[in-house]
Amino acid sequence: MNKPLILITNDDGFSSKGLRVLDEVAQEFGDVVVMAPERNSSGMGHSITTNRPLRVRTIKIADGLQVYACDGTPVDCVKIATEYFCPRRADLVLSGINHGSNSSINVIYSGTMGAVVESTINGYDAVGFSLLDHRDDADFEPCIPYIRQIIGKVLENGLPTNVSLNVNFPKPGTDGLKGMRICREAQAMWADSFEKRIDPNGRPYWWLTGKFICDDLEEDTDEWALANGYVSVVPIHPDYTRYDAIPEVKNMLFN
Amino acid sequence: MNKPLILITNDDGFSSKGLRVLDEVAQEFGDVVVMAPERNSSGMGHSITTNRPLRVRTIKIADGLQVYACDGTPVDCVKIATEYFCPRRADLVLSGINHGSNSSINVIYSGTMGAVVESTINGYDAVGFSLLDHRDDADFEPCIPYIRQIIGKVLENGLPTNVSLNVNFPKPGTDGLKGMRICREAQAMWADSFEKRIDPNGRPYWWLTGKFICDDLEEDTDEWALANGYVSVVPIHPDYTRYDAIPEVKNMLFN
Repeated sequence: MNKPLILITNDDGFSSKGLRVLDEVAQEFGDVVVMAPERNSSGMGHSITTNRPLRVRTIKIADGLQVYACDGTPVDCVKIATEYFCPRRADLVLSGINHGSNSSINVIYSGTMGAVVESTINGYDAVGFSLLDHRDDADFEPCIPYIRQIIGKVLENGLPTNVSLNVNFPKPGTDGLKGMRICREAQAMWADSFEKRIDPNGRPYWWLTGKFICDDLEEDTDEWALANGYVSVVPIHPDYTRYDAIPEVKNMLFN
Repeated sequence: MNKPLILITNDDGFSSKGLRVLDEVAQEFGDVVVMAPERNSSGMGHSITTNRPLRVRTIKIADGLQVYACDGTPVDCVKIATEYFCPRRADLVLSGINHGSNSSINVIYSGTMGAVVESTINGYDAVGFSLLDHRDDADFEPCIPYIRQIIGKVLENGLPTNVSLNVNFPKPGTDGLKGMRICREAQAMWADSFEKRIDPNGRPYWWLTGKFICDDLEEDTDEWALANGYVSVVPIHPDYTRYDAIPEVKNMLFN
């Protein structure tokens, strides 16, 4: 009987430390295919590449492990890996570990989470992992027991239909992480989002920047969990419909 | 007293016919700022540009109308326009008219709708319009009375907090469009998503392609409405949380 097959991607690129850590944990559970972007693809959200074809480079083929780099987005990576590079249907798709937060509204801009949502659309169980530490050499060690627990449980039980998980780890305090909480996304936004500069020829250009504004800090949110030392787990789904607004919009447009 | 200010963007680029049509209708209601991508940005979803700065080119400044092209994504266009180019706070953000469908799961890949969702995150009333016709010279004429009605109602009443509208028009039949229906997104996916080819040097490359698979054709879906000649209006919101799965995921991870 085949071992479970786990597909891994991310948005930081195939050589990032977070992906290596996730890959090592995943190999405890089964065979692994890695298909990750050639370059950093942070902020790519759910984008796909339509205006040029994609290339795939083989990085490593070993017993139970295949590693590829693709010059597309994280969503492209999921599509091409499941269709052309997985030796059989994947049992689980993992994305990350991202260097930096994908909690709250960040999920919508995140290439890491775009890959997770794409996997769900295609009927796969999928989990994204992110650590609130942007550094290249961030310490992922405290995340490992939680990742092991989540992979084990999801392989054993499966996820509800059309649901994936967005898992974020706070930077651990001196007494480590306090456990997991199942949360909702906090409502938030990024403000003051561009910085204007003038080039040596006197012409303006703008860098994306901004500060994270979140006033929604109730105890059931991911932001509360993370601020209080807990690992946040948000069940997400690929459906933008705001069901409870349907009657109000009907009334507004037709009366 | 100031007229309403309407910000317009899209993902097909500043020179597309769909944007011109939307711009003309919007000018009946107020002053207009257009900030649209320099180039076609279809499939950009909610992506943002983080690895390089942005440039903005002035296309036209006239009485009550400013048109700019930006070399970023549709989401970048909303951010930079609201922060640097709108002469006052916009009363409404419109995106489109897209050449091609953004119904069902397409909303998640769409740059047109990424711009709408970004506007909602930032507290603006926002509506995206799309016509199920990809052609550059598509006939948008039958859409105009509906666009006029929706702009008028939204300016008059506002949208519910944190809700935007995804409006899709079918290709009109011989007796025109049958009216509007307020819908939910149909569940769907794209299958067989890449076509492999071999270049003149014998190396493979892959084009994104695929076919739209939708088995969810109940009468409350956007796909049903469009297939039956109605304009579909889906209230959407920028929150991926799958609230009803929280107890099940809790149970699955902790037991």
